[in-house]
Amino acid sequence: MKSRIKNIFDRVEEDLDAIFIYNSTKPHVDMTFFYVTRLVVGEYEGCGALLYPDHSGELMISALEAESAKKADMPMESIKKREDREEWMKQKLGDLDKIGVNASELTYRGYKKIKDSSDAEIIDISDEIAEARNIKDDEEIERIREACKIVSEVAEEIVEYVEPGVKEYELAAEISYMVKKKGATGDAFDIISSSGPNTAEPHYTAGDREVKKGEFVLFDFGALYKRYVSDITRTYVVGKVKDKQKRMYETVLEAQNAALDMIEAGVKGEDVHNAAAEVINSTEFEGKFTHGLGHSIGLSVHDGTGLSPSVDITLEPGMIFTVEPGIYLPGYGGVRIEDNVVVKEDGYEMLTSADKELKVI
Amino acid sequence: MKSRIKNIFDRVEEDLDAIFIYNSTKPHVDMTFFYVTRLVVGEYEGCGALLYPDHSGELMISALEAESAKKADMPMESIKKREDREEWMKQKLGDLDKIGVNASELTYRGYKKIKDSSDAEIIDISDEIAEARNIKDDEEIERIREACKIVSEVAEEIVEYVEPGVKEYELAAEISYMVKKKGATGDAFDIISSSGPNTAEPHYTAGDREVKKGEFVLFDFGALYKRYVSDITRTYVVGKVKDKQKRMYETVLEAQNAALDMIEAGVKGEDVHNAAAEVINSTEFEGKFTHGLGHSIGLSVHDGTGLSPSVDITLEPGMIFTVEPGIYLPGYGGVRIEDNVVVKEDGYEMLTSADKELKVI
Repeated sequence: MKSRIKNIFDRVEEDLDAIFIYNSTKPHVDMTFFYVTRLVVGEYEGCGALLYPDHSGELMISALEAESAKKADMPMESIKKREDREEWMKQKLGDLDKIGVNASELTYRGYKKIKDSSDAEIIDISDEIAEARNIKDDEEIERIREACKIVSEVAEEIVEYVEPGVKEYELAAEISYMVKKKGATGDAFDIISSSGPNTAEPHYTAGDREVKKGEFVLFDFGALYKRYVSDITRTYVVGKVKDKQKRMYETVLEAQNAALDMIEAGVKGEDVHNAAAEVINSTEFEGKFTHGLGHSIGLSVHDGTGLSPSVDITLEPGMIFTVEPGIYLPGYGGVRIEDNVVVKEDGYEMLTSADKELKVI
Repeated sequence: MKSRIKNIFDRVEEDLDAIFIYNSTKPHVDMTFFYVTRLVVGEYEGCGALLYPDHSGELMISALEAESAKKADMPMESIKKREDREEWMKQKLGDLDKIGVNASELTYRGYKKIKDSSDAEIIDISDEIAEARNIKDDEEIERIREACKIVSEVAEEIVEYVEPGVKEYELAAEISYMVKKKGATGDAFDIISSSGPNTAEPHYTAGDREVKKGEFVLFDFGALYKRYVSDITRTYVVGKVKDKQKRMYETVLEAQNAALDMIEAGVKGEDVHNAAAEVINSTEFEGKFTHGLGHSIGLSVHDGTGLSPSVDITLEPGMIFTVEPGIYLPGYGGVRIEDNVVVKEDGYEMLTSADKELKVI
């Protein structure tokens, strides 16, 4: 347990008396709470984790979840009503001088409640927390590996359900079902199950459009496994493939390979993005790769950083990223191929394994 | 469109120049963004909605989602990079004196970015926003009604899959599949699919425990339909029912009916809770109803208020609540029955319709 709290404190330069991770109502729960407690079961709305520089911690837990929270093996106070919470916060925070908070996931209301409990200086250590969480430990990698295994199988098996006439949302339902039957607690995010021109909208989800012959279908989905996520995309062609579709697909695959070849500790994230972008921009599809190459995954799908020209990071062993170049032709269709990799000292380990040869269904 | 912005401003006493709804990265997106824009498709991370006292509004939208955001029919600026966002915020917020924000769903980091863009006084109007969102309009009620129809059908159909030996997570997978096949975009929250002693844990989700004869199974799940949610619970007995199980079930059902009988405009929320609690506390199960009776639902599962002794509200027409009494006997099992109702002037409309007679599967 201690090592994760240490991971955070080691990155903080300020001389903090404590760090307070304070959850609001779902979805405004700080995933850092789960990072430090390692709790898998429970919601923990309105709960908090107070972390000390000696790497110990203590929890403020709703009575309803006190039983589940025991697995964290940290001292805890069971909270029955609002006044109990205010009392606990005043007692624990009131005498502190400097409290670190995670401004990225703390609500402004939560911040105000901390201020009501203490005159301490509030220091935003969200960058340090993101950095700590970005380097995954073995337990985290193992969970993400399992989440990746689940989606890799589903990405291949969904093909059996694709045929002209089937609706996008029906395929999304199949994917979600298979993901859960394979042991995931849920989808990591709203499934993208798109067809035809909808595949050109990177943030489309799924509608009642019917799959048609000669078109792309694109599936972008993830599994939630013991609170950790995976995130995969595969694009297929239905019926008969056109030359242009083939050129799009092969360009994206080549771009992904160019990016993957770059990945190892010490490389700049933007250089990985640029390797993929250069492949695409040297073809007829110049300018049609309209988003960043990837993002870190972990306790959430966007876990703090990314592979993109607008993000300044250097890859370190244990970081886990999506690598997902795409080409989008509005009104026509899009191709995206997405895998998850963990950065190694001298390369990367591929965590997703679904086949990437162009498949005509 | 204007009427929802008006709903908010009408409740604010402060003389605001504008309200700024500012989304962070998922899951820290402010559902109020969807309330005022009525947008169904898209993520809108890092996007914002600036609302004016004349009930007009304008949007700051990532370039990637500019196409989807057109459906909001509001003026918008398409944002390509971080500097564009900072520039837009400085330009729009810089000269204002008083800006209202939703402290419940704005992150502390988002608050700091607003402060960096403007010297305006920042006023927390989260209570007013919650109040506005708590009264659903016809379009909202219609969407929740559809979400309730979906889960009502599934709550009855899941019974066919329950048999000794089936695992909790397999039943969760079936539920999620059926919910989506009926047109939901997703589950409203992690499905609770519990059996035996696990039914006594109100916040359990689903594990690999096998259903056994003579035990309770409990399903608590919701559908997401055009961004609005439903939330239903049904408890069944497998194989053969024991007298004690029957007494638990009938007490919970009686408690729910006592609460429902109370619901109409003008009644205090805590009185509705107390009606149910009194039924349970007058039996051998005294003290075993350990949570609030219900919560409001809408764009999120906990949409701002609840039916509980610790919440001071008076029911108004258009509010939608869960009504979910339960009895929990640790180590033995639990029963919960949950429906969704919309408050009417002189009563309520039941939105969920799954059968509630004690069912032995």
